[in-house]
Amino acid sequence: MTHETPEETPDVPPDAAARHRDKMQKRKAVQDAEVAAKTIEKGLLLVHTGPGKGKSTAAFGLALRALGHGRRVGVVQFIKSRPTGEQAALESFGDRVVWHTAGEGFTWETQDKARDIAACRRAWEIAVGLMDDASIGLLILDELNIALRYDYLPLDEVVARLSERRPDLHVVVTGRNAKPALTEAADLVTEMTLVKHHFAAGVKTQAGIEY
Amino acid sequence: MTHETPEETPDVPPDAAARHRDKMQKRKAVQDAEVAAKTIEKGLLLVHTGPGKGKSTAAFGLALRALGHGRRVGVVQFIKSRPTGEQAALESFGDRVVWHTAGEGFTWETQDKARDIAACRRAWEIAVGLMDDASIGLLILDELNIALRYDYLPLDEVVARLSERRPDLHVVVTGRNAKPALTEAADLVTEMTLVKHHFAAGVKTQAGIEY
Repeated sequence: MTHETPEETPDVPPDAAARHRDKMQKRKAVQDAEVAAKTIEKGLLLVHTGPGKGKSTAAFGLALRALGHGRRVGVVQFIKSRPTGEQAALESFGDRVVWHTAGEGFTWETQDKARDIAACRRAWEIAVGLMDDASIGLLILDELNIALRYDYLPLDEVVARLSERRPDLHVVVTGRNAKPALTEAADLVTEMTLVKHHFAAGVKTQAGIEY
Repeated sequence: MTHETPEETPDVPPDAAARHRDKMQKRKAVQDAEVAAKTIEKGLLLVHTGPGKGKSTAAFGLALRALGHGRRVGVVQFIKSRPTGEQAALESFGDRVVWHTAGEGFTWETQDKARDIAACRRAWEIAVGLMDDASIGLLILDELNIALRYDYLPLDEVVARLSERRPDLHVVVTGRNAKPALTEAADLVTEMTLVKHHFAAGVKTQAGIEY
């Protein structure tokens, strides 16, 4: 790598530079037209699903983004209960983040289905309360998909209630195996696809990466 | 949805509860064995690619996670230059976040290839400096994949330098169309797959969601 100073620019022949400029001017016109065609502003229902890493992580990235724009953020964890780095870091935003860990751990940790169902119901009640709190701009329902997959919550009622939310509220639902009824109701669905994972190479769960 | 108090538990017949407990005990044994088999601790090279939303967002979620565990975080933006909510929010962590926006905007905004290449080279120099800074635990190279895709940086040299990084440094590279040489060198690759996007429904770019 050459160490050019910012003032020096790499060699691009003048005719190539002109062709590049023409191409980019056309591309900018297309981009500008696309942006102008999009006029709707609304609270979105976002779903992060799939087997890959990044579902909850991207939800917490959105929390940071919302906080940076002066919004308050609500978080309800439906399954996980382990203390996480994101929770510790979000504490520095004080009462601008409302955090509820209602879940008591993975199903194979509790080994008690009735307790898991009761925990999910409590979590959902908290979520409904936060949907009604007009001060909240973004609500993260972490691992709600897992609760729905195991039928620990009534799918129809959950989807209906999410669809009836305040028009200015963004909601992010995370977890594998999102139910079709939920993705149909969603504005954005991203599937995190696992291409390669370090667990397969024997790397352990590490602070700052998995939690 | 019934409004049960936490003390009440839903009806799960005793034999079904016992079967569930047995199944979960077996599953826990499998999980515990899997966890015990993973012993390696190392700084990871993570790649977030694909056409879906969540690549940079998940990288900033990792920043939050790292900060929550007391690490310092470096961010180099190779392409974007628009002020973002995540940047504003991360400012509250003071000098625990080192942020460099070296990119000058999308290629169709600058319309100047030589300037784009020079900006990418400056960004890479900054990234190399942060890789050598032992106080940084996580380094985010946002949209580096775009710079590599356009051959604005020498792929071989970038991959070699990333592979030679300090063993305790986590690096996240984001952007569409990750080069195979980079994904081969990576420990984790997640492809954010676009299942449904609100832009297609005419929803505009919104603060707190896209930036």
